[in-house]
Amino acid sequence: MIITSEIIGYLAATLTTASFLPQAILTIKTKDTESLSLGMYSLFTSGVFLWLVYGIYISNNAIIFANTITFILAASILSFKIYNTLFKKK
Amino acid sequence: MIITSEIIGYLAATLTTASFLPQAILTIKTKDTESLSLGMYSLFTSGVFLWLVYGIYISNNAIIFANTITFILAASILSFKIYNTLFKKK
Repeated sequence: MIITSEIIGYLAATLTTASFLPQAILTIKTKDTESLSLGMYSLFTSGVFLWLVYGIYISNNAIIFANTITFILAASILSFKIYNTLFKKK
Repeated sequence: MIITSEIIGYLAATLTTASFLPQAILTIKTKDTESLSLGMYSLFTSGVFLWLVYGIYISNNAIIFANTITFILAASILSFKIYNTLFKKK
């Protein structure tokens, strides 16, 4: 039961972390961020940064690793959104 | 140190969970999903569902609570994206 729950946990973490890759690729390729929410990416990027700080605090390598990747992806998407909001289309 | 890390953990969880609310509101209001990645929302919604299963397995109420909310929000956004991909604009 512990092994099963651990596998489910790792699979869950892999999916939620990897999910931001296709979004980052789409955003970098099209530079279109009109239907992306600035509020979401501001809150989410801050939250992932705090997860990273949390992982460092409790010395958990899995949390540090997953959230470093997600932070880079989410911050890239947020940068495009901020740039478009300030200088171009929404 | 444990109390500080717990506060950071809870704050991180609150931010990453709450972040999907402004995106869901924007998507429901505008029905525009053109710059949202179908791949992202498919992987993310599946991942959050597995987090929910994981929370039930290990009987962790915080994980169950946070991921139930995120699942509802992410699944709503994904539904709009699938509908638009199949029947309307990208």
